[in-house]
Amino acid sequence: MRIGMIGSGALGLYYGSMLQRSGQDVHFLLRRDYHAIQQNGLQICSCNGDFHLPQVSGYQTPEEIGQVDLVIVGLKTISNHHLIELVSPLLGTNTAILTLQNGLGNEELLADAFGAEHVLGGVAFLCSNRGEPGTVHHLGEGKIRLGEFAGGLSQRGRNLAEMFRVAGVPCDAVSDLRRARWEKLVWNIPFNGLSALLEKDVTDILNHPSSKELVRELMFEVIAGANAQDLEEPIAGPEFSQQLITFTENMDHYRPSMMIDREEGLPLELEAIYAIPLQQAQAVGIKMAKIEMLHTLLDFSEAYIPR
Amino acid sequence: MRIGMIGSGALGLYYGSMLQRSGQDVHFLLRRDYHAIQQNGLQICSCNGDFHLPQVSGYQTPEEIGQVDLVIVGLKTISNHHLIELVSPLLGTNTAILTLQNGLGNEELLADAFGAEHVLGGVAFLCSNRGEPGTVHHLGEGKIRLGEFAGGLSQRGRNLAEMFRVAGVPCDAVSDLRRARWEKLVWNIPFNGLSALLEKDVTDILNHPSSKELVRELMFEVIAGANAQDLEEPIAGPEFSQQLITFTENMDHYRPSMMIDREEGLPLELEAIYAIPLQQAQAVGIKMAKIEMLHTLLDFSEAYIPR
Repeated sequence: MRIGMIGSGALGLYYGSMLQRSGQDVHFLLRRDYHAIQQNGLQICSCNGDFHLPQVSGYQTPEEIGQVDLVIVGLKTISNHHLIELVSPLLGTNTAILTLQNGLGNEELLADAFGAEHVLGGVAFLCSNRGEPGTVHHLGEGKIRLGEFAGGLSQRGRNLAEMFRVAGVPCDAVSDLRRARWEKLVWNIPFNGLSALLEKDVTDILNHPSSKELVRELMFEVIAGANAQDLEEPIAGPEFSQQLITFTENMDHYRPSMMIDREEGLPLELEAIYAIPLQQAQAVGIKMAKIEMLHTLLDFSEAYIPR
Repeated sequence: MRIGMIGSGALGLYYGSMLQRSGQDVHFLLRRDYHAIQQNGLQICSCNGDFHLPQVSGYQTPEEIGQVDLVIVGLKTISNHHLIELVSPLLGTNTAILTLQNGLGNEELLADAFGAEHVLGGVAFLCSNRGEPGTVHHLGEGKIRLGEFAGGLSQRGRNLAEMFRVAGVPCDAVSDLRRARWEKLVWNIPFNGLSALLEKDVTDILNHPSSKELVRELMFEVIAGANAQDLEEPIAGPEFSQQLITFTENMDHYRPSMMIDREEGLPLELEAIYAIPLQQAQAVGIKMAKIEMLHTLLDFSEAYIPR
C-alpha cells in the first residue's frame, strides 16, 4: 500500500518505520529530520528491539509525495491550521485518511474539507520521544484503536488494523471511534496537563497521594463528560480509571508529550485536549470543573512563554 | 502600652513601627533584622511618607522582653509550632494577645494554650514587603479589622482599634471575627495561591480573562464556604468579590506574600490559608472543588522545593 505520513514526529516516524519494515511503501513528509534521514536513514531505538532503515523516502513538500492509498496524520494539533493544505495533494478518489492525532476535533476538520467518507481516526497508546534528528526512542506500548469517523465497523477499518498488526503494531478496529477518543482523553487530560504545569513526570505525580487523588478526580470528570456523549457503551468509571492508573504506575518516570513541549518552549495542544472536550461536555450539560481549571492554568502559563 | 511584637516580618515591623512612632512602648522579637536594627534603627519606606526610628527595642529571645500588656503576633503560620513557646514569656494575668497572622486556626492555637479570654484576632489588609535588613516597604493599604476570639464587641477591642487609629492605621473593631477572617480568605485563597503556583503577580493574573474568571470562581467558593459557617451576617457574593477584584486591579503588579515565599524558597502558608479552611468548609458539607485542586497543586509543588 502506498502510504503518506504527514507529521513525522515521534509518533509518525515510529509507526511509519514499522509499516515500512513490514513491506509497505511509506513516504514521509519531513521537516526537522529531513537532512539527517536523507543521509543516514532512520534509527528506531525500541524497547522491542532496535532497528535501522537505511533507505527512507523523505520529502519536504506534500506535492512531491503525490497521491497515496492512505494518508496517516501524525501532525501536532497546534499545526492544524496547515492540515488541509498538507493532506490535500495526497488525495485520490479512494484515498483513506487516518488521523492518529491527539484529542478531539481532528476528524471533523478533515471531514469538513474532504468528506466524511475519507476519514478514519485512531488513538495511539504510544510512549515515544524524538532523539537526535533521524532517531526515535520507542519506550513502551504502541497499541492503536482505529475506527471510521462516520461510525460503524468497516472492511476498510479491519484491513488497516490487520496491516498494523502484520507490521508488529497491536491494533483493533472499533465501531465507536468517539468512545475510543474519549477513553484516551481519560489519560491525556490529567497526565499531559499536570506534567506540563508542574514540570514533573507521571511517576512523580502518582507518588504524591494528593496529586494521585487529583488525577483520579480529573479522570472521573472526563468519564462523566464522555458518558454524556451518547456512546455505544458507557465507560466504566472506577474500573477504567484504576486500570489507567495501574498502567501508568508501571511507566518509569515517563514524560508525556505536553511536558516535553513545555520544556522545549513549544506550544501545548490545549485546543484538542482541553478546549474542545470542555466544549463538547458543556454542550451536553456537563461541567468538568477541575479540568476547566487545569485548562485555565495551562492557558495562562502559555501566555508567558517567550516565543 | 507595653507591647511585644512576636514575628517581625514585613507586617510586624510595619505595624510595630507605626505604634512606636505614636508613642507606644514596642518591643520587637527579631531574627533576621536584629543586628541591622540594633545598629541603624528601622527604616519604613511608605507610600504615606517614609520615616526612620533610630532607637528600636529589639530582642533575640522572648524571655528578654518579659511581660507586656499586649502581644501582637505577626509570625508566619508555618512557624506556628513555635508560637506557644514564643508568646508564653510575655504573658501576665491581663495580657491581651492579638494575632494578625494569615488564615484560620491561629486564635484556636492561642486559646487552647492560654485561654480564650486572652485572645483577639485581626485581619490586616496590608501590602508590604521586607527590603534590606532594617528596612520595610509599605506599598499600600494597611487597614486592620480586629475582634474577640470569643465573639462580640468588647471594650478591649474598641480600645485597641482606637490605639491603631491614633497611630495612623485605619482599624475597626468587629463583633464577628470569624466573618472578617473568611472575608480576608476571599482575597488570599485566589491571589496567594495562583501567584505562587504560576509565579505571576496579581496584575498579570487579572490581565488574562480566563485566570481572572478563575479568581472569581475561587472567590465564590470561599464565600460559599464562609456563609455555611453560621456568620452573624452572610457575605454578599457577587458584590464583595467584585469589590475585591476592583481593589486588586488598582494594585500595580503587587506580589502577594506567598509568591515571594515561593521565589525565596520558603515554605508556603498552606495549612492556614488552604487546609484548615477546606476542613472547616467540609465540616459543614461544603465542597470547595477548585480550592481543593489549587491546594493540591501547591502542596505537590512544595514537595519538590529543595530545602
